[in-house]
Amino acid sequence: MKKGLNFVYTGNGKGKTTAALGQAFRAMGYNYKICVIQFIKGSWKYGELFAKERFADLLDIHVMGKGFTFKSENLKEDQDIARKGWELAKKNLVSDTYFMVILDELTYLLTHQFIDMIEVVECLQHRRQDLHVVITGRDAPDEIIEIADLVTVMQAVKHPLKQGIKAQKGIEF
Amino acid sequence: MKKGLNFVYTGNGKGKTTAALGQAFRAMGYNYKICVIQFIKGSWKYGELFAKERFADLLDIHVMGKGFTFKSENLKEDQDIARKGWELAKKNLVSDTYFMVILDELTYLLTHQFIDMIEVVECLQHRRQDLHVVITGRDAPDEIIEIADLVTVMQAVKHPLKQGIKAQKGIEF
Repeated sequence: MKKGLNFVYTGNGKGKTTAALGQAFRAMGYNYKICVIQFIKGSWKYGELFAKERFADLLDIHVMGKGFTFKSENLKEDQDIARKGWELAKKNLVSDTYFMVILDELTYLLTHQFIDMIEVVECLQHRRQDLHVVITGRDAPDEIIEIADLVTVMQAVKHPLKQGIKAQKGIEF
Repeated sequence: MKKGLNFVYTGNGKGKTTAALGQAFRAMGYNYKICVIQFIKGSWKYGELFAKERFADLLDIHVMGKGFTFKSENLKEDQDIARKGWELAKKNLVSDTYFMVILDELTYLLTHQFIDMIEVVECLQHRRQDLHVVITGRDAPDEIIEIADLVTVMQAVKHPLKQGIKAQKGIEF
């Protein structure tokens, strides 16, 4: 049985986007093409954006979240960005272009109800049959967990930024 | 305060080695050099071993675990491999060569008592001050959690291999 898998990396711990990035790295070892849609500003850091230049032939990263603030005065703008990102995702879920589509921080759009849960579930279920999808973000809704093939919850036990250690180049960004 | 961080990715879920790989990818975006010591056979898959060729100038991977079986008839051999890997790790923990050292699946060596816990803790604490260390593996011992700066526990909620879906190229290997 060959089938595209649906991965979910959720929980409050560090490692969700980083694990998605590692998945992409592994797949690119076989020269498979990867699409990343980054819904929230800043989850893909400068480090990986520089590193991706070595995979310019394989890795497409779409940063949608410029100005994604969650502040009420920008609600309309945030919703527009979310929907624009989701439309791009929908297109890539049925196209033949990629081996894997990473929907980075998608869960926030669902918990903020910027996009419709029923539509998301349907589009994931009716995607190209052998397309792998990775969804990251805290608080993955039950509906998303339900249809996933793999779910890992990343639990923060210790976090350095909470211990007064500053963010460092090559580590947090 | 600039200080090398000690990351631990543990738990029974997928994403531990993958997150370490993502950390390496981010850091390599700044052209920082990374050392990976893979203590257990097969935790770094063909995919990443192929992909790493694009980072031949930055990423050194030492595969120590050839034949790491945990079967009693090979106990002596397993111990020798574990110790050889640990000696290499010790050297790199004090050298100036790397930005980050990844000790992949180190926890198994500790839980199997192939290497000495007190020595490991001391070497981690007395490593080069600005060296980042990433330790992966299930069941990270309390002594390792205690001295870590960041600990994420990856909990498996669903796993495709347990649902009868075969391992696929670019995903599991």
